[in-house]
Amino acid sequence: MSVLRCPGCGQEVSPLSPINTCPRCGEPLFLEVDSDEIVREGARSLVPRSLKKVSLGEGETPLIERGEFLLKLEFLNPTGSFKDRGASLTISRALLAGWGAVVEDSSGNAGIAVAAYAARAGIRARIYAPADAPQGKLRLIRAFGAEVVTAKTRDEAHRAALEDKSGVYVGHVVEPLFIEGMKDVALELLRSGERFDAIVVPVASGSLFLGLYKGFEELARLGLADGVPTMVPVEACGYVKLSGYLKTVELACEEGGKSLLADALRLTAVPRLRQIASMAARVSPYAIVVGDESIGRALRELYSMGLPVEPASAAVYAAAKYVARDIGGRVVVPLTGSGLKYVPVPSDILDGYLFGTPEPREQR
Amino acid sequence: MSVLRCPGCGQEVSPLSPINTCPRCGEPLFLEVDSDEIVREGARSLVPRSLKKVSLGEGETPLIERGEFLLKLEFLNPTGSFKDRGASLTISRALLAGWGAVVEDSSGNAGIAVAAYAARAGIRARIYAPADAPQGKLRLIRAFGAEVVTAKTRDEAHRAALEDKSGVYVGHVVEPLFIEGMKDVALELLRSGERFDAIVVPVASGSLFLGLYKGFEELARLGLADGVPTMVPVEACGYVKLSGYLKTVELACEEGGKSLLADALRLTAVPRLRQIASMAARVSPYAIVVGDESIGRALRELYSMGLPVEPASAAVYAAAKYVARDIGGRVVVPLTGSGLKYVPVPSDILDGYLFGTPEPREQR
Repeated sequence: MSVLRCPGCGQEVSPLSPINTCPRCGEPLFLEVDSDEIVREGARSLVPRSLKKVSLGEGETPLIERGEFLLKLEFLNPTGSFKDRGASLTISRALLAGWGAVVEDSSGNAGIAVAAYAARAGIRARIYAPADAPQGKLRLIRAFGAEVVTAKTRDEAHRAALEDKSGVYVGHVVEPLFIEGMKDVALELLRSGERFDAIVVPVASGSLFLGLYKGFEELARLGLADGVPTMVPVEACGYVKLSGYLKTVELACEEGGKSLLADALRLTAVPRLRQIASMAARVSPYAIVVGDESIGRALRELYSMGLPVEPASAAVYAAAKYVARDIGGRVVVPLTGSGLKYVPVPSDILDGYLFGTPEPREQR
Repeated sequence: MSVLRCPGCGQEVSPLSPINTCPRCGEPLFLEVDSDEIVREGARSLVPRSLKKVSLGEGETPLIERGEFLLKLEFLNPTGSFKDRGASLTISRALLAGWGAVVEDSSGNAGIAVAAYAARAGIRARIYAPADAPQGKLRLIRAFGAEVVTAKTRDEAHRAALEDKSGVYVGHVVEPLFIEGMKDVALELLRSGERFDAIVVPVASGSLFLGLYKGFEELARLGLADGVPTMVPVEACGYVKLSGYLKTVELACEEGGKSLLADALRLTAVPRLRQIASMAARVSPYAIVVGDESIGRALRELYSMGLPVEPASAAVYAAAKYVARDIGGRVVVPLTGSGLKYVPVPSDILDGYLFGTPEPREQR
């Protein structure tokens, strides 16, 4: 049977307990899956079927080749972001445990995903979000019937959600099942048969980074992969968390400037930071930090390739171009969020980059 | 070799000719594919690879079961609608033929798709659209670098596009390769192994209806399907084209009222109407016409199921509920367009239905 396990002190907890950190030492828990169950089911997923109760058709996203890049189109998940993979398992846990209401904090995409899967499962959801989140994203959360509560900043939304006792806290920034949902990206990359030399991974709360790492580790344990490949974390200027742990490469960061474009990367209070940092130090030579000039230029390029992504995905593409030059070889680029949530709404921040006026300045 | 063929007089035309209607009798052409090529390629697509040059990862969309319904999530195509399948082949033809610019008319989704694939192929695109199309959709067309020209109505946009000689007219309302792109929906349904008794199909220009019909016919010819299943066409109140050919069932149509919600179904000048009608008469007992009260209620239900679709898809879901009661059995419901293009933008038309105020009235 699969259990929650503390990576710090080894404490074991039932997946039906309404907690996501260790009751003994406070460390965020991971799910320890039953490998026999995975193998019995033909290793078609790294998550046992017994834990997957709520689905909207997420996963198995397209992988397309563009020159030296393999683009994984995660924005084609049901609600328009990779967060659907995590929300599917998080809400499955809620359903198995019989929780009637859940609480989440999010800059937008994870809130939309949790709201949609909670709606599907008949579970009430309350989502804390920063007041300056894209209003279109907040409208989507409400369209799924969830309640939106706004806070002054992304970090304050996190703290407020932790204190809310109206439902079980399932915040994706710490929830182990949310991370678990990301593992199959590793499996899908493996099954594609494509060779690659590195993956660039956006890091806000780190769920994709942690999930990919865990996925490749488990694939190696099953004898299906060699180990964890090079995985380069990507952050946005002004929201850097990994600089104390890893060499940092900056792309077009203004002195003291904060990214306005990459709203999905604006978290700084990251409960799993040490876990992410220790994994990243093992599998990447550096973290890449991307600024708005670079993001805007990459965004324009992605639209000229016919790909309607969100700005945070463009940050990752900009980082991938650096990695392709610096490390060389083929680079996997997860395009994590849909631009369909943004472009329909007029925006002072985005429009100049999208429609070409004013012209983006030259990269420094 | 595949050729364009006139279903009226039999005239044969090269796929590289910049025409989509018969030069002899004016009837819209169909592509006649080289079946040997399909079989040689293992029947993994009903379109030969030699005709597929531009792709953004379209097709192979999820099929999920909800009670008696099989929902085909076509809104998870790259630009958020099933139109991507048609645009992929249409722009492939343009690339093979060496056209530098194309002209299209659209209420929104097809224009977005053509703009994205044209961007990918480095071909200029000019899209004619009605001035009252959702502004968010027009912004998306522009984000892909295409030019938008607005006309007073959807039908006038069609006429103006036909007269524009600045590029080759590839309007999805008549373009044979656009229809061709829809055929693989039939193949994917077949390969899913799921049994079903009917498909409900939204009909504006009819590309999905024609493509599905043609797909099942070709599958039957290859010995892979029994024939064309029951396919019930769905229209929106005020935009009915099939009533002269087929019995009509109305769901919540107000006397003389026109649907405001189902913007994607508002075409009335349909070049392929006789083709659609003669096929529909063979495979459906009636056409279903859906009004806004019914669409709004279905839309709200789909969001409460976690599915962010556009209003036209809700019309099809409402029709499917009628078919499931009337014909019985399992009904395939293509959910053709994404709500992510709508919900982020405040809307007098949509918000009442989406957010529950004012309460939709009872169905008559």
